[in-house]
This record gives sequence, C-alpha cells and structure tokens, in this order.
Amino acid sequence: MDKIRVGLFGLGTVGTGVVKVLDDHKERIIHKLGCEVEIVKILVNDVSKTRDVIIKKNWLTDKPDDLIDDESIDVIVEVMGGVENTKELLERAIKNKKHIVTANKDLMAVSGQELLRLAKENHTDILYDASIAGGIPIVRTLVDGLASDHIEKVMGIVNGTTNFIMTKMTDEGLPFDQVLKEAQDLGFAEADPTSDVEGLDAARKMTLLANLAFKMEVNLADVEVKGITAITQDDINFAKSLGYTIKLIGIASMHDHKAEVMVEPTLLPKDHPLANVKNEFNAVYVYGDAVGETMFYGPGAGSLPTATAVVSDLMEVIRNIRLGISGNTYVDPQFKRQIKTPDEKFSRHFIRLEVEDQAGAFQEITNIFTDNNVSFAKILQLPATEEEGRAEIVMITHKISKAQLMKSLEALEKIAVVDRIISHYRVDGEE
Amino acid sequence: MDKIRVGLFGLGTVGTGVVKVLDDHKERIIHKLGCEVEIVKILVNDVSKTRDVIIKKNWLTDKPDDLIDDESIDVIVEVMGGVENTKELLERAIKNKKHIVTANKDLMAVSGQELLRLAKENHTDILYDASIAGGIPIVRTLVDGLASDHIEKVMGIVNGTTNFIMTKMTDEGLPFDQVLKEAQDLGFAEADPTSDVEGLDAARKMTLLANLAFKMEVNLADVEVKGITAITQDDINFAKSLGYTIKLIGIASMHDHKAEVMVEPTLLPKDHPLANVKNEFNAVYVYGDAVGETMFYGPGAGSLPTATAVVSDLMEVIRNIRLGISGNTYVDPQFKRQIKTPDEKFSRHFIRLEVEDQAGAFQEITNIFTDNNVSFAKILQLPATEEEGRAEIVMITHKISKAQLMKSLEALEKIAVVDRIISHYRVDGEE
Repeated sequence: MDKIRVGLFGLGTVGTGVVKVLDDHKERIIHKLGCEVEIVKILVNDVSKTRDVIIKKNWLTDKPDDLIDDESIDVIVEVMGGVENTKELLERAIKNKKHIVTANKDLMAVSGQELLRLAKENHTDILYDASIAGGIPIVRTLVDGLASDHIEKVMGIVNGTTNFIMTKMTDEGLPFDQVLKEAQDLGFAEADPTSDVEGLDAARKMTLLANLAFKMEVNLADVEVKGITAITQDDINFAKSLGYTIKLIGIASMHDHKAEVMVEPTLLPKDHPLANVKNEFNAVYVYGDAVGETMFYGPGAGSLPTATAVVSDLMEVIRNIRLGISGNTYVDPQFKRQIKTPDEKFSRHFIRLEVEDQAGAFQEITNIFTDNNVSFAKILQLPATEEEGRAEIVMITHKISKAQLMKSLEALEKIAVVDRIISHYRVDGEE
Repeated sequence: MDKIRVGLFGLGTVGTGVVKVLDDHKERIIHKLGCEVEIVKILVNDVSKTRDVIIKKNWLTDKPDDLIDDESIDVIVEVMGGVENTKELLERAIKNKKHIVTANKDLMAVSGQELLRLAKENHTDILYDASIAGGIPIVRTLVDGLASDHIEKVMGIVNGTTNFIMTKMTDEGLPFDQVLKEAQDLGFAEADPTSDVEGLDAARKMTLLANLAFKMEVNLADVEVKGITAITQDDINFAKSLGYTIKLIGIASMHDHKAEVMVEPTLLPKDHPLANVKNEFNAVYVYGDAVGETMFYGPGAGSLPTATAVVSDLMEVIRNIRLGISGNTYVDPQFKRQIKTPDEKFSRHFIRLEVEDQAGAFQEITNIFTDNNVSFAKILQLPATEEEGRAEIVMITHKISKAQLMKSLEALEKIAVVDRIISHYRVDGEE
C-alpha cells in the first residue's frame, strides 16, 4: 500500500492534537484514503523537552532543513505560527515540491495569495481551512461546492474574539474594557487585541473568502472596516429596544459583476440566526444560485477543533495527490476586479444624534435627510434631559446608498442644532 | 483521461437539474476529479416527450435493462422515486457492480440498510445525502468527519414540511389545518401528509443518522415519535410567554454506550439557533468530542438544491472509484445495540393541566409531583374562568426521567381535581 509521509512544523497544543488525531484514527484514515499516513519528522525548538503525546525519539529535530530537504516527505503541516521566518521556510518547502497544510491565519492573511501562486507553479497544494474559521470547512465549501460558481453573498461572524466580546456586552451589560480583559484572561483575546477588535483579522479573512467566492482579486484595501471599540451600552440598548442585536459581521457580496466587501458592527433582527451565534463561535452564511441559503456554524478557535480541521485538510491534500489533481488550490481570478463605489453600496443604517432641545431642531434635521432623499423606517425621539437642554434622536433609515449616508452625516455635522453624531451602524438581515 | 459513465433513472425536475449541473460544471468537474463524467443513458417513461434540457436523442430509453445490463455504465443516479419497483431495479444494478447515488428518501428509509449491505458485498458505493436533508451534507459529515468517532449528540430539524407548518403557526398565529392546506398548495406538503406531520419521516432520518453517528444498529422502533398534529395556538402562546419556541426536533444522543433517539415537538429557548430556523429550512447540530458543536443549515427541499446534492454525491462516488476505496458506504455496527430505558432518559418538560378551581387543588397536584421527585423551574397558574370554575396550570419541570414524567401524568389523571392533561412537550437547548 502507498504511504504518505508527513513532516510537522511545531508541536504545541495544535501540533500535539494533530499527532493524537492521526494516531487515534489510523485505521479510519487508511479506510478513507486507501493509503497510510506516517509522521516522519517534527520541527521543534527544544528536542529534549518532555511532551504530552507519545512520539518516536527520532521524529524530533530543531533544524528546518531536516524536513525541507528530506525528499521522502510529501506534506508539511505547519502549526508553529509566525509570519516572516515561517513564510521563508514554507517557500523553500514548496520549491522542494512539498504540499502544505497550515493553520496560520496571520501568515495566510499577509502572504496567502503569494504562497498559493508559488504552490501552483510547483504543482503542489496549500490547504488552510483551519486558518479561517476553526471548525468550519468554509474554504472547502467555497472551492468544492458546485454552487460556488454563482455565489452571491458570503456573510458571517469570522472572528471569535469580537463575537465573545459583543456577546458579553449584550447579554451581561458589561462595558467593552471589562469584557476585553475577561477575554484576555480566558485566552480568547491576545495581549495586543488591536487586530481583532479593530476588525482587521475579520477583514483579512473576508478578503480571502471574497477571492474564492467571486474568483476576483479583492484586496484588503477594498474592504470597508470598522471595529467594535466605539460601541457603547447605549448603542446596544437602543438596538435592543428596536428589536436588533449588534454583531461584528463580515459581508462579501456581488451584484452586476461588482463586489462589495466589508466588516462592520451590524444590527441584525434579534431572531436572525447570526444574531444568536454566541461567545467565541463562528458562523458563515453562503447564498448560492443553485443551493440557496446554507450556513455553517462551529467553534472559531480551540486546539482540538483546529487540530481536527488540520487533519481534514491533510486528508484532502493526500486525496488530491492520489487523484493526481494537486496544484489547484490557487484559484485564478476569472473576473476583472470591480469594486462598488459609495453610491452603489446600499443598506439600511442606524443613526444616533445628540441634538439641541429647541423648537425647529427636528425640522432642520429632517430637512437635511429629505435633501438627500433619505427616508426612515423608525424614529425614536428621546425626552430631553432638562439640566442639559439636549435631546437624542435614534433613527433607522430605509435602504440608502453609502454616499447618501455620508453626505447626510456631513451636512448634519455642520448645523448648530446637532451637537454630535453619537454613532451609526449598518442594519442587515431583513427583507 | 479516464471517463466515468453514468446512467440516470428518471428525468423529472431533479433529473433535469442533474443533467444541467453536470453540463454547466463540466470543466470544473474534470478539474476536481481528474477525469471526465459522461451521461450515457436515461431511463424515462415516455421517450417521445419534449424535455426542458438539451439531451442526446440516443440517451433516452424506457427499458431499465438498457442501463442495468450495460457493462460500460459505472454509476446509476436514481432520481425517479418509488419504493418497491425501484428497490428491485437498484438491487440488480448493484449485483452488476454499479455504484448508486439516490435522492429517494422513502426508499432509503425503508430499505436503506439492506441496500447498503448488498452494496458492500458487491464492493460498490451507495451515496444518499440528497435523501436526508436536501442541501445539507450531513451524511458525509458523520461518515467522513474525524470527529465522528466520538459523536455525542445529533440534534436538528430534518423535516421541512413540519418546520414550515410550525413557523407559520408560530409567526402568523394560524391554526394547524389552515397552514397544512397552505403547505400543500405550495408543494411543501404532500396530499397525504401523515408521514411528515406524525413525525415518521423525521424518525426514519434520525434512525439513519443515529446508525452512522454511533455505529450502532438503531431501529425505527427504538425511536420515540410524537407528531405535531395536536399542537394548538395555546401551547405555542404559553411557550412564547415563557420564552420558548416549539419546533419538531429530532435528537439522537449517546451516553455510557446507550443511545436515545426521538422525534418530538420540543420547546427551545427563543434565542436558540434551532428556534430561528424558519419555513422549509433544515438544520442539524452535531456535538463531537474533538470539534465541539457544529451546525449545518440549508434548504430542506427544492429541485435545484437536491440536484446539486446529487451531483456532490456523484463526485464522491467517482473519487472513491478513482482512489480504489469503493464499497465502504455501509458502516458496520461496531457497538452492541443498547437503548436507554424510560428511567435513563432525562429532560425538562412543559406540562399543561386543566384543573378544578377549588381550594386544595393545587396542593393535591403538587403532592403528586413531590411523590415522584419532580420539581419545577417555572409554574404559571392562570386565573380561573368563572363561568366554568376551571383553572389552568402551566409548568416547566427541572430535569426528570421519562419514567418520572409518565408516573406523574398517570397519577394526575386519576385525581378528580385534574380535568385533563392538555399537553406536555420536551424542553431542550438550555444548560
């Protein structure tokens, strides 16, 4: 029987999980692939360290070249993290005709397209589902699914950290800073949480998903990104009282050959399935021409889900080797890059204004919206606090363009009766 | 390049869809399989009928033997429906070493295990994902997923007809009969809806899923089944006022090597993801040891989603042929069949009683529950209607065994102050 030989970069919690899963499911894997899978070498920092898993003594090495230059190794499984150095090692491995499986989201976000192209040139595969949404096989769904030819929209929660924070803020009424601290203590947020809370991590993932879904080269710079750091309890409570839940949502959509990709705090009707995805879980909706609406939901993080996703990708790589169809993981852009302009991006919006509590103020404000053709589904005017002589207006618009929104907000900022625009967010998930 | 030759049983809406999808995605399929797929013959009733799809004249035949005895055909795709006659044709095809893809839920429910065993003997595959939950690849997830070795629970909405009915009854306040009629008019319910509304169709599917998930032979007779015909607007409204939504839920779970499978109207917290799966959609949760909680959501029916699912299964069959691993679609039971007894089945329950409005009635009732060690999370006592001298009590129990529930209900039926047990349903989805 054929045997596929695997080298592992890294033996932390995910790496250890991979070794365990491969060992526990040995028979099953032979059954599903028609060949054996054998780990032959593992790159670690310290070969003398005691390990949580049974490994053969001669597996361990601290020299990358022991794996990269070993001609018998077919696949490198990269679960050690790091960007620059790791990229260089993987490039050399690819040039030595090795297939790659990686769970490294930072690496794929920064250098994914480049590595995928290099792999294509070398007729090897890179599988990276574990780097996107942990337990959810979303890359495979977009690449393999027949419906993927005509995907209209991909929408979801693709960052576990921010979803954990939004859940705690919403359900327990806690302020952002306190929840962030809790997330850090639990290991759901990193010491420097910027990339998560500013929406960057989600934006990178949406960029990769948009590329796959639409077969169009979408760049990170094309994504409109807004993080969750400015969201307050008042925003959450006003949203609640109007029947909505605020989530950090990534959306990639395509109409008339033009793409729109964004990551923004979004108000969803509280009975929308995504509104009920809690804590560190991820969920991704795919709207396809043929299949209609499908959703995938699963843990966004965790070492065992990630190890399982890595092994699934490894099995796929091996299946491709055995079918003689390796080298197809880079999807060539088939369509010209066309991104929607602000006057082509339509959505409903939630807007909160602090205004002077004086006669005619409301009239002045509605005039501005009328001038910009903006009409409203809901308006809440809150009783003025007498001490301050200020009132608050909360509105939900009908569908308007991003250009209409921006023009209205600019005009509002200029009139004296508007003290400030407190916040504004997209509203989605309704017909 | 290799070529795989396919024969089609049936050219209705799904069959036509299959021909279209195969044609539209010709290049993509070659890309994914490393071989070509060609339809060579289609079994129809009337060869002279005009068709909605471009087909070659010599494809059509009204003689099953033209396909069954054609040695060049590798795979039969069965999308014509029917049980007895279809089963016999497929058996002959399997004996002629043909692989089968089917979307026939009635056939698989009645004869699935038998056909799968026959296929195993003949080293051929039967793939039937399209017969379970339309657009959701749940069979593949349970069979392929590495997590499938330790699946603890499968829970979901696996019948589109009843979910459509429950959605309309809940959201629009319409009575069962009227909604059923609407479902029939829309083609979501059959003229004889018994198998759907009594929960039988869902029970058959849960039987198949339990077999796959737990590798244990679970029979239809092991499934506790309760349909939705007795659910009233009052039930729905009381559930709502307590924060729940009623759905027809299938659950297969396994603890201490003992399985429990049921299909019952179930109260779920209204923010539970399954509570928000609407209309004809299906959704299945899988709780695995390694991956944790994952959910799949998609259209439960429809000719295009079904055709797409059929083609996905066809591609899987072909991949298996090319990998030399055909004949593994029947999963041998690995564990001894052990089904939980009523005193091992634990759940919370919603109970509605109509009682005499007299002093001491409440005391008498609570005594019975206390005797059976049943305690309550919530009790609603409704004001008596004076004309009748009757009151209503709505309760939600803490976790109790099915045996405790049944004993309590039996005892309640015997005391004079209880006029009748109006309804009782499981409560799930809470910690």
